[in-house]
Formats: sequence, structure tokens, C-alpha cells
Amino acid sequence: MNGAESLVKTFLASGVDVCFANPGTSEMHFVAALDTHPDMRCVLCLFEGGCSGAAEGYWRMSEKVASTMFHLAPGFGNAYSNLHNARKGGAGIVNVMGDHATYHLKHESPLKGDTVGISQSVSHWTRVASVSGDVARDGAAAVRAARSNNGQIATLILPADTAWSDASEVITASAPPSLRRPDDGMLDAAARLLRQPGAVLSVDGRALYGPLRELAAQISEATGARLMAPMMVPRIERGAGRTVLQQQLYVVDQNVDLLKDTSAMVLCGSNAPVCFFAYPGKPSVPTPPDCHIYPLCDPDMDIEFTLQALADRVGALGLKAENRVTLNVPSIPHGPLTVGTMAQAIGALMPQDAIVVNEAITAGFPIGMATAQTRPHETLITTGGAIGAGLPTAVGAAVAQPDRKILALTGDGSAMYTLQSLWTMARERLDVTVVVVSNRVYQILHGELAALGVNDVGRNARRMFDLDDPGLNWVALAEGHGVEGHRADTAESFVKALKHGLATKGPVLIEANV
Amino acid sequence: MNGAESLVKTFLASGVDVCFANPGTSEMHFVAALDTHPDMRCVLCLFEGGCSGAAEGYWRMSEKVASTMFHLAPGFGNAYSNLHNARKGGAGIVNVMGDHATYHLKHESPLKGDTVGISQSVSHWTRVASVSGDVARDGAAAVRAARSNNGQIATLILPADTAWSDASEVITASAPPSLRRPDDGMLDAAARLLRQPGAVLSVDGRALYGPLRELAAQISEATGARLMAPMMVPRIERGAGRTVLQQQLYVVDQNVDLLKDTSAMVLCGSNAPVCFFAYPGKPSVPTPPDCHIYPLCDPDMDIEFTLQALADRVGALGLKAENRVTLNVPSIPHGPLTVGTMAQAIGALMPQDAIVVNEAITAGFPIGMATAQTRPHETLITTGGAIGAGLPTAVGAAVAQPDRKILALTGDGSAMYTLQSLWTMARERLDVTVVVVSNRVYQILHGELAALGVNDVGRNARRMFDLDDPGLNWVALAEGHGVEGHRADTAESFVKALKHGLATKGPVLIEANV
Repeated sequence: MNGAESLVKTFLASGVDVCFANPGTSEMHFVAALDTHPDMRCVLCLFEGGCSGAAEGYWRMSEKVASTMFHLAPGFGNAYSNLHNARKGGAGIVNVMGDHATYHLKHESPLKGDTVGISQSVSHWTRVASVSGDVARDGAAAVRAARSNNGQIATLILPADTAWSDASEVITASAPPSLRRPDDGMLDAAARLLRQPGAVLSVDGRALYGPLRELAAQISEATGARLMAPMMVPRIERGAGRTVLQQQLYVVDQNVDLLKDTSAMVLCGSNAPVCFFAYPGKPSVPTPPDCHIYPLCDPDMDIEFTLQALADRVGALGLKAENRVTLNVPSIPHGPLTVGTMAQAIGALMPQDAIVVNEAITAGFPIGMATAQTRPHETLITTGGAIGAGLPTAVGAAVAQPDRKILALTGDGSAMYTLQSLWTMARERLDVTVVVVSNRVYQILHGELAALGVNDVGRNARRMFDLDDPGLNWVALAEGHGVEGHRADTAESFVKALKHGLATKGPVLIEANV
Repeated sequence: MNGAESLVKTFLASGVDVCFANPGTSEMHFVAALDTHPDMRCVLCLFEGGCSGAAEGYWRMSEKVASTMFHLAPGFGNAYSNLHNARKGGAGIVNVMGDHATYHLKHESPLKGDTVGISQSVSHWTRVASVSGDVARDGAAAVRAARSNNGQIATLILPADTAWSDASEVITASAPPSLRRPDDGMLDAAARLLRQPGAVLSVDGRALYGPLRELAAQISEATGARLMAPMMVPRIERGAGRTVLQQQLYVVDQNVDLLKDTSAMVLCGSNAPVCFFAYPGKPSVPTPPDCHIYPLCDPDMDIEFTLQALADRVGALGLKAENRVTLNVPSIPHGPLTVGTMAQAIGALMPQDAIVVNEAITAGFPIGMATAQTRPHETLITTGGAIGAGLPTAVGAAVAQPDRKILALTGDGSAMYTLQSLWTMARERLDVTVVVVSNRVYQILHGELAALGVNDVGRNARRMFDLDDPGLNWVALAEGHGVEGHRADTAESFVKALKHGLATKGPVLIEANV
């Protein structure tokens, strides 16, 4: 058994059985080892950003760690942006970054790079597996690190000679360390704060779906505190029957207005509120200056324990949360295709239990509005703000939950970042309906420039914001990747295409010309 | 004048007048400043890897520094791989990486990242422009750094409040520091070594084209030393009438054989020879163990001075190099389209003075053979070994030299990495004929696995190497990006398509199904 086999067996023994990969020569022994272990599902992405985004989507919808495989520092660089998003969303991922043989690194070869440096700039945990006899231990430690603190980015750098030299061990990853918990005094203080007028309970992570979401809603009802969440969340239950929860907003003034009566905000799994960007003359923080921000449970702490202890303190245990979204499915739209009618159609046709990946940027908010009271579903949002997560996240979500329909809603600008994921959808027969909101512009940037008071947009700005010369043909792009594509220019044709996509088992792309 | 305007004016005053950009919100003031300076040519790429690769291609063909614009750490991450390639090729680039306002960074916002960390892992020079009044000085220093040591990666991190706060200065970048030179003793020693039997003069960088290439050839003829270069070079003159120069080879055994009689290798602008990868039981270094490797002039030293001083010492000044490639244009091929007939057609039809970007990987060597004696041209190769440079490099080369035909030859696997560059070719009406060698496989990886002795390729390896399920439709992908596409399945149809592409002013893509 060589080091690569020892590592693959260690991953499998530790429950890591999916690998989103784009290998190169230095990973050849790892590939050979995977080849003799068909129980490891290898999913090829034609660009590494597809791998890292897929691993994140997989974590979100399975709470399981996937591995990735990248080719030295440049391959990791290609994966970086979606690792950033994954880090912000608290995803657990084990990256295997191949590297030159240890003895080869003293030479100035073309692919030699700062593998440790780039890894450390985004990973929580980085280790060079420099001895083949220890690679099982290193691999198990990487899996443990990825599962620690509610999910982390762990990167194992695998020199080629570690992969090809002798090893003998297989190690099962031990359980991650216990999560930190707030003490009684903090829980008491939080319980008091939640009962005061203007209180908010801000939740994130696993408190946005399933039993912990219910528990959070019970606490909200028992205390009168408003249940809220940040704007960018990895996975959130939405639609009819869900407990009422308000997410923060992108536009600073709107968000400040939303939070203006907040006297105290108890954080449980969420970071302190912050504006997405800073602007001249606007605050960095959207809550009122005298608002008491109370970090009860950081994102890396024990959210389940905290919510249960809090529920116990406020008498919420066993309470049935009554404040729920009522069913109000939009009607089928007619007429011109606009962001509004498109959003309405999505709300009208949303299947029960769909997984919605929303990276539609400026169209994302209207879609959120139009789907707020439709059939229950879950939504995944780009947590780190780096566009290009949407299609890869959909890939990973579909691998994690093959029996649910994935609806991937993306801007044309954001879809272009990682369009190679369309091919992986076709290759793996993933059940994804992709809607590209084609407005032929980075619309958000026009808005941001206007926010600076620039109303007279000149040639250089237009050339950097507008995608209309030439226009992108998304039907052709879909077909180029082996995915069926349809174009919709009216509400009727969009409805027809969306119905078709939702009724088809497998990937379909719709270009929505709004 | 705000900091952003101060920076744009400083760039223009310093002769940096092209910006390959993909901006975001934090760069909005920089965009506004560019918008009032139409003398800065802004070229939009729909993915940051397109920007960094284009800036590299621009440097190669103009020896001028371009700027880029990236959106925080994730945007820089997307650019990373081609910055790695640019670093290895000695390109001078000034990156402007936007960041949050300085006072906003204490908050945990979605896009906050380790901008300094990722920059330092690939840049030679990194600075945070934290004071708007100093941004002109910082910008001028960045340009100077990019021009130093024959070309470097300089990254200026531009916080949003530096961009929007008051500034008043415009500074012209000062000349870069003098390049280091070898001393007389070293030059004498090199001259002696070059005259011994089995000597090699290994050149790179600016010694591969123009007057320095001539000078190197004169030294070779005066001394009897063989003129050689590494395999991966940023820009090299090839074809009829060029002086004879042998590049090193990818396959270790072939390269060892090529170099087996080398008694001494004098390095002038090139690094010490090294195999691309290490393999079990094979050497890291291709030269014989007793070969004297003599680093006369490192890539960051004064190559021009060194060659002139060397030529003077060996009596080569004024000598006319006689050892030149004779014209032998291949005939037009017929019959099935194979890598061989495709390469033959390229050799047959190569226009005089074409700029050839060769990222055809396994097809690249046969193309190199078939074009060795055709009409004179220049070839650009991916210097850092990270695929995905080809199409972006072609963009930058075309911006730098709009009057020359660019022939971008790429594998299907490598083209998929940065296919968004096709759109920029259409947007900017760049005169590029793209040939995608479509073999529907990462062919090099099959070869590498076979080199390990693995002949029985299983499902997991095939699923990671083969691009045939589904096949990529490059005509559709081209059309999706607004580029005219043609498919060739026979030698005749390839010749017809290539003739058409070469006769068309503007981008044309040919899918060569080999």
C-alpha cells in the first residue's frame, strides 16, 4: 500500500466518499488509488472552482464532508473563490492539494508555487503530508479538522513522493472536539435581553432549518423577540408552513430601516450584523448605535445546546411555534417577461421541497419576495459574496440529495464565472433546472455607481458593466456543455420552459431574457 | 481629486494605459475615475483569470505593464493561476485589488478576506494603499516594481476609502533600479566554458527574440556551444530564417537523451534545467550528473549587458549567425483529421509574422514540429504550466499587437478553464483564430498514468480523464460567446476553416475533431 492508497482508505474509513476532482500529473498516484476504490464517487469538474463550490453545496445539503483534488498552487487558486464562500458559510471540506515530490521542490520548476501560503490565506487548517507513513494520520486529522467548529476548510498538501512511497496504515478520523458553549450567566443574560422590547434573536447555520429552526421560533414566540437572520445564509427553509423569520437586506438604508427599532440583538450562530460594503457617509453597522449586540453563541460554538438551554430558560420547550407563513402561491403570469413576471412564475411553479440556489443578484430579491409564501422549499445563498458559487453549489446539492429538484437561479454575470459546471450537471445527470436571468449587464454595479452620485455613465464604465456587445447566447452555451437549453422572451414562454424543466429528470437551462 | 483619480492619473502619467478589469462594488470609485479618463483602455473580462492572463500576454508582446482590477481576495483568487504563469514567465503586471474601507475591516463581512496573504503567495511586491494622500506614491511604486528585475507581479491593495477620500498628487513612476550584472570573472569563466566540447548556452526571456536572440546565436557560433532554451518560454521566434535553437522536452527520458552530452550549461536569463515533474526512479534534473551548470545571468539580471559582454569576450560581435532554419513549408494535408494532419495544415498555412499561442498540450509538440520550418512567426507558451492561460494570453497579445494575426492553439481541456475569454475577443474585435484541438480527453493524464505502469484504467480514472460524456460542442460554445465557430472532421474541412479564419479580421473558432 502506498501513501495515496493509505489516504483514500482513510477517507473512506472516515466516511468521506465523494471527491470533486480536477487532477493533474502530480496527483496521478492519488488517481490510481481512487481507481481501485470505486466506493469513492469521483465527480469531475472542468475547472477547480466547480469542485470547491460543489463540495460546499454538498456539505450544505448533507452535512457531510467531501474531498476535493487540486493540482498544486494554481489549481488551488482556481478553487479559491468558492473556498472563500465555503469558509464564510461554515462548510466542512477536505482539500487534497497535490504538490511536487519533496526533493523536487528545491528546483525552480514551472509549477512550483507557494502551496502553504495560498492555502493558509483561506483554510482554517493546513498541513503538508511530508511522510508517506504518516499520511493516514494526516488524512484523518484533515477530516477531523473539516468537521470541527461546525465545519472548516482543511487542506492537506500531498507531495507526489508521499503519495507513491510505502505506507501501511488506515486511520478512522476521531470525533471533532466538543463545541464551546456559553455559560449559565451568558444564557441568563440572553434570556433577559430577548424579553425586552425591540429584541432580536439572530440565528444562522443549522438554526435556519429543521428542528433547530423550530426551536429558535419557539424561543422567539416565548420571548416576543423578532427572529432574524443575515442576508447571506448557507441553507434556509422558506415558504408556506415555515416559521416566520426576517433576513437582513443588502441596501444599507433599507437594512438600517429594518433594524431601526432593535434595542438588543442576541447572536446565536450568526456574526454581528454588518453592512455588505462600506459607503461614504453611511454606517458600517446597520443596527442603531445604542443597540446591545450580544454574542451568545459564535458560529463555531454549540448552537444546538445553546438554543435548547435558551428555550428551557424562557419556557419555550414544547411550545408549538404558531407564527408561520401562510400558503399564497402566485398566479401564473402573462405578458412581457420582466424580473417581476419571471419571479412570479417561479413562485407559481415552485415544486414542494425544491432546493433553490439563488445567485440571481439583483433579481434575487424579487425572486425571494415572489417565493416567500409558495410551497415549502429550501434556499441556498452565496455566503461569501463572491459570485460564481451558484452553479457549482447546485452540483453539490444535487449530488447530496439526488431525489430533490434543484432550481438554480443565477445572473448572467455570475453564471459566466463557473459555467463549466453545466457540463458536470450533464455528465452526472443531475436533476437541476437552471434559470439564467439574462439582463446583459452587471446591474448591481450600475446601481452602485449611481449610489455614488454618478448619473452620467461614460464609455469606460459602460464597457465594464454591460454584457451586451456581444450578447451571450445561453441556449448555445448550454448546448455546448451538453445541456438542453431554452430561451424565454415572454412570461408564457418562460412558464412553458420552466414547467418543462421541472418535469424533466436531468439538467435543463432556461435563458430568461428580462 | 480623490484617491482613485490620483491613482488613475498616476498610472497614465507612468505609461500604464490598459486595464484588464472585472470590477465590483468596492472598486466603484476606481471605475468612476477610469470613466473620466478615456485614454485608459478598459478591457472587460468575464472572469478574472481572463484579466491576469491577458495582462501577461500584453506584456509578452509589448514589454509594457498593464494594470488589472480585481474584486477583493476572491477576485484575486480567480486571477491567481494566470498570475502564477505570469510570474514564471517574468511578466510585469500591476494588479489593483480593491478591498473594503479600512475602518470596515474590523467587521466580519461576507467579502472580507486575507488580501495580503493571497497576494504575497504569488506577487513579488504587495502594498496596502491605506492613505489616500499617498496613493499616487503607492501607485508609482507599484509600476516601478512591476518593471523591476525584468518584470514582476506588483499588487496594490486599494481600500475603498482610500479610493474615495481626498488626494492631490500625480506621480510618474521612476525608472526601475539597475539590473544586476555578472562580474568580469564570471564572464571570463562563462566564455571558457562555452568553448569546451558539449557546452550549451541556455537562454530565456528577451534573448529568445529580436536583437538579443541574434546576439545569443552569434555567441553560439563563435564558441561552438549549442544554443538552447527551456521548454516553457514566454515568447520565442520560430520558423524559417530564425537562428537555430533547441528547446528542452517534456518527457524526462527524451530530455535526458537530448542533454546527455552536455558537459557545461551557461545560463543566461534562464533557470537551471529541471524536469517538469518528478517521477519515481527518474532524476529531477535532466542534465548529466557531472554537467557544470553555470548561472551567469539569472532571469532577473541584465541579459542584454551579459550577452554583449559575452559576445565581446568570445569575438562574436559583428559576426553574422549563419546557422539558420531553412524554409520548408509543409504541403496541404488530405484525408482524416488527426493531430498530425492538423499540425501539417497549421504549418502549411501559417501566415508570416503570426503570433502563435500554443497551449495545445499533447498536440503542442507535433504542432511545434510541423511549424518548425514554416514562415517566420513567434510562439508564446504557458510558462507556469497552469492550464487556462492560452485564450487569455491571446487576448492580451492581440491588444498589444492589433496588426498581427493571432493563432491560439489550445487543447479542449485547457480551453475550458478560461473559455470566457472568447467573449472578450468578440467584444474587442480581436484578430484571433482559435483552434481547439478536441480529443475529448485530458490525454496527458492518460500518458502519465501509463507511465506509472497502470495499464488497466478503471472507471474512476476514466471518469476523471475523459471529456466524452457528454462531448463539448465547441461551435456552440463559440457562438454562445458571440464568436463565429466551425467544426472540422477532415483535413480538407480543417484547411478550409483555417483559411477562412486566417482571412477573417476578427475572432473565429475552429473545433478540430482529431
